[in-house]
Amino acid sequence: MKGDGTMTNEQIQKMIADVHAALDAAGRPMVAFAGDARIESGASLNRYFDHTLLKPEATADQYETLCDQARQYETRSVCVPPDRVPLCVSRLAGSTVEVCTVIGFPLGYHSTGAKVAEVRHTLGEGATEFDMVIPVGRLRDGDPGAVYDDVRAVVDAAEGRIVKVILEMVLLSEAERVAAAVAAVRAGAAILKTSTGFASGGATVEDLAILRLVAGADRGVKAAGGIRTLEFARACIDAGADRLGASATVSILGEAAGANAQSDSEGGGY
Amino acid sequence: MKGDGTMTNEQIQKMIADVHAALDAAGRPMVAFAGDARIESGASLNRYFDHTLLKPEATADQYETLCDQARQYETRSVCVPPDRVPLCVSRLAGSTVEVCTVIGFPLGYHSTGAKVAEVRHTLGEGATEFDMVIPVGRLRDGDPGAVYDDVRAVVDAAEGRIVKVILEMVLLSEAERVAAAVAAVRAGAAILKTSTGFASGGATVEDLAILRLVAGADRGVKAAGGIRTLEFARACIDAGADRLGASATVSILGEAAGANAQSDSEGGGY
Repeated sequence: MKGDGTMTNEQIQKMIADVHAALDAAGRPMVAFAGDARIESGASLNRYFDHTLLKPEATADQYETLCDQARQYETRSVCVPPDRVPLCVSRLAGSTVEVCTVIGFPLGYHSTGAKVAEVRHTLGEGATEFDMVIPVGRLRDGDPGAVYDDVRAVVDAAEGRIVKVILEMVLLSEAERVAAAVAAVRAGAAILKTSTGFASGGATVEDLAILRLVAGADRGVKAAGGIRTLEFARACIDAGADRLGASATVSILGEAAGANAQSDSEGGGY
Repeated sequence: MKGDGTMTNEQIQKMIADVHAALDAAGRPMVAFAGDARIESGASLNRYFDHTLLKPEATADQYETLCDQARQYETRSVCVPPDRVPLCVSRLAGSTVEVCTVIGFPLGYHSTGAKVAEVRHTLGEGATEFDMVIPVGRLRDGDPGAVYDDVRAVVDAAEGRIVKVILEMVLLSEAERVAAAVAAVRAGAAILKTSTGFASGGATVEDLAILRLVAGADRGVKAAGGIRTLEFARACIDAGADRLGASATVSILGEAAGANAQSDSEGGGY
């Protein structure tokens, strides 16, 4: 079924219900979600962006630049490695920019205990959002309960902060994508995220549509991986994304500003 | 200096001494290393191999096959994700094969606390070797002390088991490669390892020569990343590798057996 993309919405809805029922029967209840992780109505483009730098070789001065750009453009967050959280929290003090870090990134097969330790440590240092990767291989063993348990432990450790759950959809069949997303939502995910940006493929409009169906009215969807142009950013938003993870934030927002300016000078709407 | 490879052994030795002196002055003493992590004299080719499967999407049956191959060929270890340690410990019970897992893999920028938690957790589950990744970015900030502190915490948590320290050399300049290796040795690394296999390049003969110089008489060197042929495996061993990390273990050992058989039939030595 991998990548065939031929399922109708009704088929996907049926599959979603089946996974919910199976997890319920397996003793994995729906975790109550009190928040609202959707993008606010009428938000400007910059507020969709998790401004991201996750290259292992990036140096402190690059993180300082990232933070300064995020402050200037008022992005939603910076998304940075755990060991850069203190630097970014300090650099962004007094701004509205969240400091998001990554958990079990990018391969997802860390033990749950190590993921929980990472959340606790970086939460204590001031991180306010967490993007975690699911245990992809164990999902593919046919065990969405393993995903649920892993996500739930991280959600509990995050003490009410936003946890985005990265499904790395390029590695999954369509049925596995649905199973992973449902397990994540039941376990308390605030936001379902398509990709790490480190696998062979990133966000697709088709994947975002599936995630929007699973996420329902109050959970969010984040597109990440390969968002380099305004056109694709807008396509992701149109497909239901509440967040965009990108390194090319400044370039994309610059492109949008140029498009707006041109549109203004032509007297047209945007 | 990156990738120029023009340093003489004398220049490298001078650089090694300088980094040792700088770390000593910065209050990072040499951790005593009681063991011997070199390959034993006359070891057969199979004993060099850490038989490796680290794809995030790999399923339980693939790890069972990996373990069965490791047992059959008597490799030194299997190298597997943290969340596959219980499966592999169970599958390899009664064999001579070590169960090695990866820490802070593959990007290295996890917090030290999360790395330590991962070691403790997997040690408790029966892992006997640990391949950790250094915080590459903080090394590149010009802070080999950050590498020392990170490695030392992991070595302490490993309670005497072998810790291999992955330097991801393709991301480093020649001076950074030396600094990283010296920091790792001082902090108690048993084995210096070239690469994760997830970056843009893997082991090179030139890198192995540098690591052999830093490792000295009792620490080992591990080549990993891109070892797919008998010819390259032998080149790595000739350059000083005590361990080879590879997914292509069975193919390489098969190639060696074929070469031996042909050599025998020709009456030649091997």
